[in-house]
Amino acid sequence: MKTSVITWLFISVMGLLSSHAIAAKNVILIIGDGMDDQQITAARNYLKGAKGRTVLDTLPVRSAVQVLTVDEHDPNTAVYVADSANSATAMATGVTTSIGRIGTSAKHDTDLTTIIELAERQGMKTGLVTTASVTDATPASFIAHVNNRGCEMPVRMVNYEDRGDRIIDCSSDIKAEGGKGSISEQIAEGQVDVVLGGGRKYFEQTAEGQSITIQELAQKNGYAVVDELNQLENVPHDQKVMGLFSRKTLPVRLRGTDGRIAEEPEFSLLNWIHRYLGTVDLPDVMTCEPNPEFIQKQTPHLKDMSALALSRLKNENGFFLMIESASIDKQSHKRNPCGSIGEAEQLFEAVDVALEFAKEQPDTLILITADHGQAAQVVPNGSLFDVYGVPVATPGAVARILTPEGGVMAINYATNTFNSEEHTGVNVPLFANKNVLNRKGEPMITGLIQQRDIFEISTQYLGLDTGSDLAGNSP
Amino acid sequence: MKTSVITWLFISVMGLLSSHAIAAKNVILIIGDGMDDQQITAARNYLKGAKGRTVLDTLPVRSAVQVLTVDEHDPNTAVYVADSANSATAMATGVTTSIGRIGTSAKHDTDLTTIIELAERQGMKTGLVTTASVTDATPASFIAHVNNRGCEMPVRMVNYEDRGDRIIDCSSDIKAEGGKGSISEQIAEGQVDVVLGGGRKYFEQTAEGQSITIQELAQKNGYAVVDELNQLENVPHDQKVMGLFSRKTLPVRLRGTDGRIAEEPEFSLLNWIHRYLGTVDLPDVMTCEPNPEFIQKQTPHLKDMSALALSRLKNENGFFLMIESASIDKQSHKRNPCGSIGEAEQLFEAVDVALEFAKEQPDTLILITADHGQAAQVVPNGSLFDVYGVPVATPGAVARILTPEGGVMAINYATNTFNSEEHTGVNVPLFANKNVLNRKGEPMITGLIQQRDIFEISTQYLGLDTGSDLAGNSP
Repeated sequence: MKTSVITWLFISVMGLLSSHAIAAKNVILIIGDGMDDQQITAARNYLKGAKGRTVLDTLPVRSAVQVLTVDEHDPNTAVYVADSANSATAMATGVTTSIGRIGTSAKHDTDLTTIIELAERQGMKTGLVTTASVTDATPASFIAHVNNRGCEMPVRMVNYEDRGDRIIDCSSDIKAEGGKGSISEQIAEGQVDVVLGGGRKYFEQTAEGQSITIQELAQKNGYAVVDELNQLENVPHDQKVMGLFSRKTLPVRLRGTDGRIAEEPEFSLLNWIHRYLGTVDLPDVMTCEPNPEFIQKQTPHLKDMSALALSRLKNENGFFLMIESASIDKQSHKRNPCGSIGEAEQLFEAVDVALEFAKEQPDTLILITADHGQAAQVVPNGSLFDVYGVPVATPGAVARILTPEGGVMAINYATNTFNSEEHTGVNVPLFANKNVLNRKGEPMITGLIQQRDIFEISTQYLGLDTGSDLAGNSP
Repeated sequence: MKTSVITWLFISVMGLLSSHAIAAKNVILIIGDGMDDQQITAARNYLKGAKGRTVLDTLPVRSAVQVLTVDEHDPNTAVYVADSANSATAMATGVTTSIGRIGTSAKHDTDLTTIIELAERQGMKTGLVTTASVTDATPASFIAHVNNRGCEMPVRMVNYEDRGDRIIDCSSDIKAEGGKGSISEQIAEGQVDVVLGGGRKYFEQTAEGQSITIQELAQKNGYAVVDELNQLENVPHDQKVMGLFSRKTLPVRLRGTDGRIAEEPEFSLLNWIHRYLGTVDLPDVMTCEPNPEFIQKQTPHLKDMSALALSRLKNENGFFLMIESASIDKQSHKRNPCGSIGEAEQLFEAVDVALEFAKEQPDTLILITADHGQAAQVVPNGSLFDVYGVPVATPGAVARILTPEGGVMAINYATNTFNSEEHTGVNVPLFANKNVLNRKGEPMITGLIQQRDIFEISTQYLGLDTGSDLAGNSP
């Protein structure tokens, strides 16, 4: 990190600390993508030790969240595993929808009003911070409305053939059809005060029906668009800012030794005859090391993006800020436990920044949750059944990680044989710095809530009007 | 169920309801073996629907528990996945130990005083109720002290060769060596007022150095030993009772259609050349159905055993009761999701019974938790990546279950290729009907506790002296 950035961050943080409390209410929603209890346990074991505690474990409110999804063709039928689009849409709009949808309803494709739009209407500031592309499913669901998460830029809007047989189609959302355009266009033409993350490639394309790029569209709409965090130092606080610090997802902080990820155990030839014969070699133990790409590209830390966002959003009308650590999930898809652990650490640091902010601005609600479960499981190093003398190992891939406290933690990935693991349907944890009372004076965060309740809790805390004009948002 | 049993249970429950509150304090610790958040989510989805709530979800206190284990040879080294023996020992004694140990410390093999022993010393009643053998790791850890969970009866004490290469040895615990004998002998010679579950086979053997069976040893020690729940109807309330309702584990309530469990997807021949070629057939959808064996053997329900135990334990000095639904874990080892779901249902019903009791006896603390995580994962029915046109399925086994609400829930088992799945190291949930304050007046159940804290919380609530004579129990 350059000295100037350090100086600047120091000044920013001091600015936060020295300021006086403002009566306005703020919500900071921090999403660990795929950060279920397995991911939290693995990160805690590595970063703090088996007996250690993360910042999440010190918070006064802990709950669990039902992750709900419905079938696109029959929205009355439950689907038991979500993706980041439908789960973020539930948090952003209070409506349970179908897989892949961004701010739109299942089957009927109604645009759903998001909490960011409600906050803007009442004169609050808003922000989106992520380690993914800012057009990725989680941030997109808080601002955009399209029928598929893949529609991140104009060229992907009409019958776009992604890898394999996957066809993305958002024909009805193109501007020529009266739609709002692709996700990057909707962000560029939107009013979110602070947009920070990756995804520059989605803003380099020409905007639909225009002769300028989407980045230029954003600038025309008043955005200061930068590609380094410290370039925002001199942008006036009343100007909207967009920081795009990578072409796609930001590089992650940690990786396995020499870039190793989970590997398949090697069973001996005899094992091909019967699975109880022969022997098995487990992958060598690895450690987690700094990811050179993260350093080379001078990738901003999530905590620094978060601190910057908070310093710009603080105002007398209050704000809503969503912060996402996206690659806990993306690295679990890739069977890279060190990647996930480093991004969980980034989330913990962002929580520290948010808590520090809330000390000075006590009317700040901080909610931390995951959008859905992920494949990774902490499993025995070896097997509970090693004593039986048969080769016992995962049918998937496993990583054995030497932890700083000297144990060996094994992480299993075995939800499929594809190049990307599956999500899981487990209820996910939610943590908060305080509870919120409903109109009857009852705590809204109970032992179990639904993902859509995060919208209800946040709008209630901010005093946002979710009344008459939200008919489309019926859960 | 016979009419006489129903009549009797009706009278018992009415007895509970009509009684007056007693000032004595009681703790009911309910353990769902292997009941992590995946298991709870799967059971909730099936039994209550994706949007439904179990009784656990209605409780006012929710926390998470770190499951700690240490290495047998170097107790300073963390092990990241537990078994039921070391995890139950932590809850029973407040001490973190090594895998397989029952009420004894890692490496040094010190006998650790259990909460049941402490309660007995202060004149309280005690009880152990389980759907496993009463000698199984979870109940055993609350009353017995041996160096291995396999030492359930005298014949298994000295260099006993279990399946495969597994050698069980508790030589130092035999009576001839000054030890306390096998687990069944320790239970037979103990003072637990109510012992209900399975495991009759472990009491049929001759006691070490004697000419009577272990069951007869129990009777000599004052136990009324029965093999049907309603036989306890006429046993005086001041007599110790032991109900052994099955030779080993009690049959479980539910099973898959025609006894089906999770099955391996069938990949076509082309897939052997490359995993992205060919096609895959997933197992047919199944439902959960009543397990005929459970009905034929007139297996007592966990709720009825629990109600019976509570009716006998209620007294003016208070009690400690541990209730275990054991086969959530055992059926997950066997890749039988319906089995696990039915046993989670049994646990929920036992919680209902406990809550009903606490209405009448408000000085009753109810804690519900799991001892460790399990392999099962709720995964997509099909795959998130089905659109890519390659065969995507688990490398392990999967069950696809038609839920009563009309969805299809897929449960994946893929932690190993052995005949029994692994535990996982995830932190597990804890639920309570109220919080407990420590001597400083602070709540003891916070967002994250350690498994050994369950001992601290329970002894604090009951006012048990954990002082001078517990030097061996240093955590």
